[in-house]
Amino acid sequence: MQDRTAMDEIPGSVGTCASFALRLGQTVFSCASLLFMSLGVEFYSYTAFCFLVTVMGLIIPWSSTLALIDAYSVLVKCPIRQPGIVLIIVVGDWVLTVLTLAAACSTAGVVDILLRADKSYCPQKFCSRYQISAAMAFLSWFLSLASSLFNLWLLPSL
Amino acid sequence: MQDRTAMDEIPGSVGTCASFALRLGQTVFSCASLLFMSLGVEFYSYTAFCFLVTVMGLIIPWSSTLALIDAYSVLVKCPIRQPGIVLIIVVGDWVLTVLTLAAACSTAGVVDILLRADKSYCPQKFCSRYQISAAMAFLSWFLSLASSLFNLWLLPSL
Repeated sequence: MQDRTAMDEIPGSVGTCASFALRLGQTVFSCASLLFMSLGVEFYSYTAFCFLVTVMGLIIPWSSTLALIDAYSVLVKCPIRQPGIVLIIVVGDWVLTVLTLAAACSTAGVVDILLRADKSYCPQKFCSRYQISAAMAFLSWFLSLASSLFNLWLLPSL
Repeated sequence: MQDRTAMDEIPGSVGTCASFALRLGQTVFSCASLLFMSLGVEFYSYTAFCFLVTVMGLIIPWSSTLALIDAYSVLVKCPIRQPGIVLIIVVGDWVLTVLTLAAACSTAGVVDILLRADKSYCPQKFCSRYQISAAMAFLSWFLSLASSLFNLWLLPSL
């Protein structure tokens, strides 16, 4: 029981309520980014937009699975503390964080170019959707970064 | 002397030959990226390119200063082991790594758009320079990431 208490001091690490909230936020923002980008817009004409959709398609199953694991851990009060599994989660988080940042930044760069081009090239309605999608991707990146840092912090104490 | 020997086991951390090589590589690639982007090309017409130039202007003094510190440490055989200073180096490295990745990705996204536009909009000569600049920024990011990871690894042992 002492070990559990000491480890529960790190909020946001895997198996806590805060981690569940972070994962839920990642899933919601990623879904929003994916939907704004892909519904009714010809996203596949730009490499950066395809990349964003691919990365969001990776991060949604990852975050929702971990959200389920966190919810289960909180309910049964038995958080995951195997170093191997936490290491896999940390590495996966870091890879997805880097990919999300890359996708969000390239999307933002492309949106900036489209806004500067003539308006016929990018109707106002589509451009705002691209912008919202990029903003959602940045929010998802921010939450992913928080999760990665908390789990990395947890790792040496295992 | 025992402490020194134990810590020298982490190659690439601050004050070692490998770290000096990494810093030198970062400086060289960042300078190359900056020069390819800014010399004779109208980079300031795109936000992403301005961002790349700004970030490269930050990473060049940072990496060259740390390269000098590493060279000095190797020569006098007395590496920095104060936790405070190493922490500052780690945090600075991580911030610059994230910024470099963001700049490289947005530049790559913009170059992709320019290559798809008509050729009059982006002459072949300029576009290859943008591409090389983005590639150099990615290489600089990769070396920065290596430095950050090695220094982060060193941190708990201090």
